[in-house]
Amino acid sequence: MKIVNENILALEKHYRTNLVNSLIGFKSANLIGTISKEGKTNLAIFSSVIHVGANPPLMGFLMRPVSVERHTYSNIKETGCFTINHINKEIYKQAHQTSGRYDKNVSEFDACGLTPEYTETIKAPYVKESTIKIGLRFVEGQEIKSNGTIFIVGEIVEIILSDDVIAKDGYVDIERAGTIAISGLDSYHETKSIARLSYAKPGVEPKEI
Amino acid sequence: MKIVNENILALEKHYRTNLVNSLIGFKSANLIGTISKEGKTNLAIFSSVIHVGANPPLMGFLMRPVSVERHTYSNIKETGCFTINHINKEIYKQAHQTSGRYDKNVSEFDACGLTPEYTETIKAPYVKESTIKIGLRFVEGQEIKSNGTIFIVGEIVEIILSDDVIAKDGYVDIERAGTIAISGLDSYHETKSIARLSYAKPGVEPKEI
Repeated sequence: MKIVNENILALEKHYRTNLVNSLIGFKSANLIGTISKEGKTNLAIFSSVIHVGANPPLMGFLMRPVSVERHTYSNIKETGCFTINHINKEIYKQAHQTSGRYDKNVSEFDACGLTPEYTETIKAPYVKESTIKIGLRFVEGQEIKSNGTIFIVGEIVEIILSDDVIAKDGYVDIERAGTIAISGLDSYHETKSIARLSYAKPGVEPKEI
Repeated sequence: MKIVNENILALEKHYRTNLVNSLIGFKSANLIGTISKEGKTNLAIFSSVIHVGANPPLMGFLMRPVSVERHTYSNIKETGCFTINHINKEIYKQAHQTSGRYDKNVSEFDACGLTPEYTETIKAPYVKESTIKIGLRFVEGQEIKSNGTIFIVGEIVEIILSDDVIAKDGYVDIERAGTIAISGLDSYHETKSIARLSYAKPGVEPKEI
């Protein structure tokens, strides 16, 4: 079937939101941890984290202009720091629950049953139950004019993960680490490796590595 | 183990690229199709497509400043259009191969064994072998100052997919459609559904739906 723009705009709101959110493909499943200057922690699920660059090491994510996620943004502005924590199968229900509209004075760590954990490097809480954790310092926010969302970019200052998931070439076996994927707004998926492929060169068939 | 920023910067280039690209979690696997004003088609794999908004329906992706992907950008600037095509298990090797550094006068459709397909709505080629295809018009490009990458945003003008993968509430079962996920630079994964969870509300345990 074909659906054209006018028909998308005419769809019932929840139907349209489910539909458009599904069209990206599989999305990363992360919890972003922050703390306010008064020391109140915040934790929110994000499926829009993407790679921005390796040198300097940058990650980015998109934030809606008005939503519960504002707590994340105001904390990042206050402290200049945030953490990205991979979601695994053991904590996906707790992770999903962080998307509830909790008051600013409620910590999603407490409300959803996850444990804050700190290092000396960064002023933001990690999620203890996560197996891959990244600490970042805020570097820029670019507003997307079309709808007022903000693309937030952070530089990696710390990576915490188990030695045995890093391959000799630096690739991290996130499947082995238990990381899961999201589709749409609310669907969670585990993965099964198909293959890693060799660097693509014109005229040379890619090989499994 | 912990890796801190100074140590990331000191890593061998390929090791660092593999490592940092793995830290996002699972990534969407899409082919972006474009055509130049002279009618030359271009096809490139992207793992950075994210949801920007549902009303208006917007999708975005990050483009490196200097790379083979420039062909995609110059074509988008020329025609104002591009397509996003989900990658499935049947075409992942061809999709990977589009990342080779082909000359501008070589179409990755021909070189990699994929078939261009057109509709009357949009001046850009779809990938016939893809099961979920989205046509978009360019709306804005925001430069990420930290490294000169550009976040490109498009508005959906057309969606082409099979009726039987859309649930009653608009959710698209992309796993059933055969869509796969990427991790790192070169690892491909199929998925297995864990669950869909109900809309999160404070104090209410999320239920499988």
